Amino acid sequence: MPDTPAAAEAAPTAYESTSRTVPTRAPHRAAYDRERVHAILDEGFVCHLGFVRDGAPVVLPTLYARMGERLYVHGSTGSRPLRMSGGADPGLPVCLTVTHVDGLVLARSAFHHSVNYRSVVVHGTARTVTDAAERSEALEAIVDHVVPGRAADSRPANAKELAATAVIRLDLEEVSAKVRTGGPGDDPEDLALPHWSGVVPLTRGYGAPVPADDLDPAVALPDYLKAL
Amino acid sequence: MPDTPAAAEAAPTAYESTSRTVPTRAPHRAAYDRERVHAILDEGFVCHLGFVRDGAPVVLPTLYARMGERLYVHGSTGSRPLRMSGGADPGLPVCLTVTHVDGLVLARSAFHHSVNYRSVVVHGTARTVTDAAERSEALEAIVDHVVPGRAADSRPANAKELAATAVIRLDLEEVSAKVRTGGPGDDPEDLALPHWSGVVPLTRGYGAPVPADDLDPAVALPDYLKAL
Repeated sequence: MPDTPAAAEAAPTAYESTSRTVPTRAPHRAAYDRERVHAILDEGFVCHLGFVRDGAPVVLPTLYARMGERLYVHGSTGSRPLRMSGGADPGLPVCLTVTHVDGLVLARSAFHHSVNYRSVVVHGTARTVTDAAERSEALEAIVDHVVPGRAADSRPANAKELAATAVIRLDLEEVSAKVRTGGPGDDPEDLALPHWSGVVPLTRGYGAPVPADDLDPAVALPDYLKAL
Repeated sequence: MPDTPAAAEAAPTAYESTSRTVPTRAPHRAAYDRERVHAILDEGFVCHLGFVRDGAPVVLPTLYARMGERLYVHGSTGSRPLRMSGGADPGLPVCLTVTHVDGLVLARSAFHHSVNYRSVVVHGTARTVTDAAERSEALEAIVDHVVPGRAADSRPANAKELAATAVIRLDLEEVSAKVRTGGPGDDPEDLALPHWSGVVPLTRGYGAPVPADDLDPAVALPDYLKAL
């Protein structure tokens, strides 16, 4: 990952940096180009959504999907952040963070231990989606984001289910990525120490699908699951 | 995972639930027993730490370790949450969340799609650790939490490095786990639909360690890395 300042990117392809998207630490690891941000967002499907309740922070894991320059999160109409962002309210200030941990970085010195990671932090105001078409599209996108191709191979939500589901939208405006790659950064005077140093890659994958107990054995495993 | 109410657990082995640790959704998935909470915390090493800055939430990924009933997070003395929790301040209200995603739950209906996961949410006040012995122990614990056995096989932090490192502590007092396991929960009228249903397990693992470019080939891969 080149450590070029994001300012070198052409403006239309990058998010504008703000006081809260320029990290206080390791600013050379920050990136603002849309392509990189989108790639990190699209690779994951669980985010950590932060909001403020009674003055204190709350961080909850939840599913999300990206459609263009918008993120969507869904949940029960009774859940706290979804309730708080709706109605006549001015929306809910949130911070939505997605993190992939790619490797353990082992240096000779304890101090230079680190992890390789790619993360995206989105600041903004979450608003309840009320348009029926946008709601349906967002819900499909969330299902397809977890398993591409799945939305078309399931029963769409009915009116009762839709009424019980809240969808909130967060525009990608104040956004930054942060990326660490590569090996350990030991100090020159530590290089001769007798400690192994390098990177232990972390892997993620899929196990063999486990059919539901009540699945009709005549229903074959679909291709989009074989492809995982 | 049995869906027994946490209240059935013996009091000393469980965290007391509070208004903010009882979820508004799926309260039967909440758990408060220390053993389960500790196991979830000990399996991960990256948390999402939330705090409030200028009235808005901020969520950042960071490393952590547990020592008994305390969590420790470290970082540069210049980083925002570490700076904000120190000095003469009354500490920094935080929410620290750890999530493991174990499987994709595919139901016949889009509505009943879900993921199997185990998460822990800790609410509390982070405080800067100033005691030298506690700081050293916490830093070792963070290294060992990522790779057990590594702290003893690296150069300990020197005075300059210690001076540049802040350690904050968060007591495990207001804590809950939330766990989903098992297959999809389709409605009876959907069981005959022709969609595959079940769980796709998610796996995590380690790739082959990659030695640093400047590692002396005479330094062998240590046993604690072979054991990963």
